Amino acid sequence: MVSRTKYKVKFYDTDLMKVIHHSNYIRWFEIGRVELLRKVGVTLEEMMDDGYVFPITEVEAKFHHPGTFDDELIIETTPTALTKVKMEFDYRIIRMDGDKETVLVTGHTQNVYTSMKTGRITRLPEKYMVRFAKAMEE
Amino acid sequence: MVSRTKYKVKFYDTDLMKVIHHSNYIRWFEIGRVELLRKVGVTLEEMMDDGYVFPITEVEAKFHHPGTFDDELIIETTPTALTKVKMEFDYRIIRMDGDKETVLVTGHTQNVYTSMKTGRITRLPEKYMVRFAKAMEE
Amino acid sequence: MVSRTKYKVKFYDTDLMKVIHHSNYIRWFEIGRVELLRKVGVTLEEMMDDGYVFPITEVEAKFHHPGTFDDELIIETTPTALTKVKMEFDYRIIRMDGDKETVLVTGHTQNVYTSMKTGRITRLPEKYMVRFAKAMEE
Amino acid sequence: MVSRTKYKVKFYDTDLMKVIHHSNYIRWFEIGRVELLRKVGVTLEEMMDDGYVFPITEVEAKFHHPGTFDDELIIETTPTALTKVKMEFDYRIIRMDGDKETVLVTGHTQNVYTSMKTGRITRLPEKYMVRFAKAMEE
Repeated sequence: MVSRTKYKVKFYDTDLMKVIHHSNYIRWFEIGRVELLRKVGVTLEEMMDDGYVFPITEVEAKFHHPGTFDDELIIETTPTALTKVKMEFDYRIIRMDGDKETVLVTGHTQNVYTSMKTGRITRLPEKYMVRFAKAMEE
Repeated sequence: MVSRTKYKVKFYDTDLMKVIHHSNYIRWFEIGRVELLRKVGVTLEEMMDDGYVFPITEVEAKFHHPGTFDDELIIETTPTALTKVKMEFDYRIIRMDGDKETVLVTGHTQNVYTSMKTGRITRLPEKYMVRFAKAMEE
Repeated sequence: MVSRTKYKVKFYDTDLMKVIHHSNYIRWFEIGRVELLRKVGVTLEEMMDDGYVFPITEVEAKFHHPGTFDDELIIETTPTALTKVKMEFDYRIIRMDGDKETVLVTGHTQNVYTSMKTGRITRLPEKYMVRFAKAMEE
Repeated sequence: MVSRTKYKVKFYDTDLMKVIHHSNYIRWFEIGRVELLRKVGVTLEEMMDDGYVFPITEVEAKFHHPGTFDDELIIETTPTALTKVKMEFDYRIIRMDGDKETVLVTGHTQNVYTSMKTGRITRLPEKYMVRFAKAMEE
């Protein structure tokens, strides 16, 4: 599954070089994975209610072109691994300009699961696996 | 008591008009009141451990001069009311330029106390009042 | 004219009290006034190309109820003065819950115009007044 | 040269999982490289006055342990390449707890130089190389 979420760049997303501050793209990766998981019925609320948090353990991003205020962006998210021990996603942040698409940023993240009780890395229960399998389908 | 906390403006605090984005001053008011309360031995951790949260209910700010990247600021915080039902503070954000001081922003905030159990507005216990009285001294 | 813009609360908008950090509402006021001005054909780009910046000079907000992650919000913006010397707006940030609307935050801002050349407060040219008049209509 | 800059975690740096939102560490990498460059006399202002911007092209981070509100952090920055075509840095974000140091995050960034006139990637003039050499010394 590939999830595409729109985001319109806000004035407050820019910095004095008149472009989007790069830390915002890292935040928008999060929007992308939240939306993708929601599409297969997995919400942060359910996971937290079940006693899991899922801290991010790795992030990588390459910045190809600068974006700026008022740009119409697509956050494109593709899961590359959704298992009992981790979630991994690829991202492309794309600027839409009529029919023209410009890839501004590409990236990758990894999250693992941690038990809220023990504070230690843990495995996610079986019940999530069907939904994860759906997300991993083409 | 007047509390003065230093803050050096970061690149990421700016926007495309090449000045500090105004929402940051609202965040820096928070730094100011946290530091003032700490100086009289009141920490957010203790209040939360005691079952209280203290949401902000009002904020006002006047922006007199723009600040920018690398400015050396002072967040000056003065409590105007610290009671069982609310906390109120006045703020001045001052840019230091050698001996010269320029007031960039003035402001005021109000917080009230809410019980984490009931979610309702509540009164703070007596034990905080001695420390609050100290903060209210000249 | 009243402008209504949707905003879905992001994970990164929250703080450790599990609610929206209050500084974000101040940022969302900005989204509201940008969108309202765009609806009558006034863009920040045109104003900046004409040599004007329009720093915010005052903000006031009252926080009535906390919001949190995943809330569906409406940023409601109403101009109260759009003249050659200033822009003033009222805001309501409303949480939508099916048919139920809860006003989370109300606020007010004022911006003035500054010449990029002189750095001083200035008057906006006549050409903007027709569009401003349209925005002020019921 | 290794540069160490202190940072005390603010309330507004946290999210509803009660830890520092990961995007903030990416911002703090920026604080680290700005301070390191300043120590050898290179400022963003001079580079911009000379007509250069230096967009970030790559960022990588590994998150080892969560941090939270009030943590005393050290942003440790080590340049790994400072040439006419790029700047590369390694980072460690360390939590100080008395004598105990815990590495929360490690990372790496790359910036390249772009001409403000042409918008294209360019080489930095010779004059910066002496200062860069100093920064690269042990």
